[in-house]
Amino acid sequence: MKPRAEGFAFRVECNASHARASVLTTPHGEVALPTFMPVGTQGSVKTLTPGEVASTGARIVLGNTYHLMLRPGADAIAAHGGLHEFTRWPHAMLTDSGGFQAFSLTEKVKATEDGFTFQSHLDGTKYALSPEEAVRVQGLIGADIQMQLDVCPPGESTRAVVEDALARTTRWARRALAAPRPRGQALFGIVQGSCFPDLRRAHAAELAALDPGFDGLALGGFSVGEPIEKMHDTLAEVAHLLDPERPRYLMGVGTPYDLWRAIEQGVDMFDCVLPTRNARNGQALTRHGRIVIKQARYKDDRSPLDPSCDCACCAGGYSRAYLRHLFIAGEILVLRLFSLHNLHYYGQIVREARQAIVGGHFAETKRRALQDLSSEDSPRNLSKAST
Amino acid sequence: MKPRAEGFAFRVECNASHARASVLTTPHGEVALPTFMPVGTQGSVKTLTPGEVASTGARIVLGNTYHLMLRPGADAIAAHGGLHEFTRWPHAMLTDSGGFQAFSLTEKVKATEDGFTFQSHLDGTKYALSPEEAVRVQGLIGADIQMQLDVCPPGESTRAVVEDALARTTRWARRALAAPRPRGQALFGIVQGSCFPDLRRAHAAELAALDPGFDGLALGGFSVGEPIEKMHDTLAEVAHLLDPERPRYLMGVGTPYDLWRAIEQGVDMFDCVLPTRNARNGQALTRHGRIVIKQARYKDDRSPLDPSCDCACCAGGYSRAYLRHLFIAGEILVLRLFSLHNLHYYGQIVREARQAIVGGHFAETKRRALQDLSSEDSPRNLSKAST
Repeated sequence: MKPRAEGFAFRVECNASHARASVLTTPHGEVALPTFMPVGTQGSVKTLTPGEVASTGARIVLGNTYHLMLRPGADAIAAHGGLHEFTRWPHAMLTDSGGFQAFSLTEKVKATEDGFTFQSHLDGTKYALSPEEAVRVQGLIGADIQMQLDVCPPGESTRAVVEDALARTTRWARRALAAPRPRGQALFGIVQGSCFPDLRRAHAAELAALDPGFDGLALGGFSVGEPIEKMHDTLAEVAHLLDPERPRYLMGVGTPYDLWRAIEQGVDMFDCVLPTRNARNGQALTRHGRIVIKQARYKDDRSPLDPSCDCACCAGGYSRAYLRHLFIAGEILVLRLFSLHNLHYYGQIVREARQAIVGGHFAETKRRALQDLSSEDSPRNLSKAST
Repeated sequence: MKPRAEGFAFRVECNASHARASVLTTPHGEVALPTFMPVGTQGSVKTLTPGEVASTGARIVLGNTYHLMLRPGADAIAAHGGLHEFTRWPHAMLTDSGGFQAFSLTEKVKATEDGFTFQSHLDGTKYALSPEEAVRVQGLIGADIQMQLDVCPPGESTRAVVEDALARTTRWARRALAAPRPRGQALFGIVQGSCFPDLRRAHAAELAALDPGFDGLALGGFSVGEPIEKMHDTLAEVAHLLDPERPRYLMGVGTPYDLWRAIEQGVDMFDCVLPTRNARNGQALTRHGRIVIKQARYKDDRSPLDPSCDCACCAGGYSRAYLRHLFIAGEILVLRLFSLHNLHYYGQIVREARQAIVGGHFAETKRRALQDLSSEDSPRNLSKAST
């Protein structure tokens, strides 16, 4: 079942075992997949201009509905012509449903069959988010792709809890699909099931069978506290089973290691705050591991972050010693340069993976990339806690 | 007495009464005067890349010796090839002597005939700054232009205090000129005298007569607490008397209003943290006054900061409503965009003044600029307190 929303198309160009190179067409241009979506939580990919974000290769970014509905408000964004016009991002955009942040950021959140009620973490204002309301609010925000409201159980939940979450997510999926939304917006469903492969498989089939159907299918409920290898084991059993005629999006993941592993299993889209958040904590990610710039070892180091990188930070001649000085002195410039570098590195990973799929040498390219990452400082070792 | 340092030249192209258009040649390129020098306190014009700073028209920036000698240290900068190489700024640079910050930022500062001793505000380390040491440290930092160590009395000091400061500044001037410094670095002297025109005149003559001489002459000790019109009255009596064959630099000044008034009196160079500091406080400066972006009046305002401005913020289509959202949400992007806009506006002022001098209509252009600024929100009303 191909995407149905107006202005959308999806075609797979090439497979390499489960991994695939595809193209997602949206009303705001084409996106080559696999792709990584930088996170623009509050209408800004933190520290960067839209032009800089695009310079990293990104052609789709993510906005957080929870944050945007609280401030400046979905109506204010709609009155401004939508999130593209508001933020001056000309390419594709996706918004999440708001449910995940409502659940993780607010107190007094209540979940019922109808949806979530919660109080804003900013000023205590009460909100109610139902499957229909999530579609309405995302319609006002105006991204190209909406996500359904779903129920995301914690990483190590019991099978019974996961089964309940999954069943409710399916009921909410039907309601979301039935809700009116602008014709130029796609809607993705979210497969839950934690690390129970059989539940994942069943839920994937259930959502794929809905008619009218989703324009894409996401894997939610990963990277929420479970051991990372458990996620990868489950992905290996499940990701390639998601309807091949729709894009597959692994939500909230992950490290460079995670990207390579998940692309191998057939995932097309990723988002994560890791590259930008770690940047603001003074961590640069490179193919050979991470650089924690405040360390004394960089004090007199005149080399760039990564001599093989052609981002504006590395190619601009900024030395590690200077970047360290800026970080220790609290200068904003280094947060920008690291954000740009890290997103550029993530862009490089998905470009390299895509080229390898098309070129017929994905397995070898992935193997080498994981080898490069396996040094002691490898970003592979970045746990969720450090992000 | 023309500049003597290697690679330097100064020529006046055109006069309009006291105002003048001139060119300062440095080892790092030509600087069209009048000019405004953005302040790069700790080796970074806050929030901006060197390329962005240059895009505002700036061809010379200022570095603070006090901050740089504390962190990362003058030796570290020298080992890195100097401040140009360290910060990747390819154009001209000037450093102050460090004395002003040592006096205003540190506790336990002690002033003697030999210089200042003080403890770092960062970690309590003890430093001694003599006229010779200031030259040595600035030599290591490696800017194109050094400033002599001077004594800057508070704005409303008694005549006796000012006379003492002035006499000691002259003795320190002789010592600074006698100290060894790299051949490719110019040295400017600093005229003190608060708002006593006769003391200013006498000191200007005294410094101008020193041989070997300074490559430029600065007016220090303004904008240190005195009423702003008192400064302008004094400038009107004094600025044009500074040796016309050397560049004249008004230190630490000022508002757009101050720039127009001082250029009229023959000042060639300025520096001030106001445009970048106010930017980080959410204030955009425009020819029609200032915009305090957090105000509710901009909530739904879809117009740019200044429709007549062609900076990347105004021409980039960012609306006041979006910029307000970013500021309230604490997003770094707006600090960048405002810094860029404000420096662009300052660059525009000095360009416009220069063109008017060359074009023979400076008086009229200045009159209109001051008229535009005289609205209620005018930056003219920006007191030192609000910076």
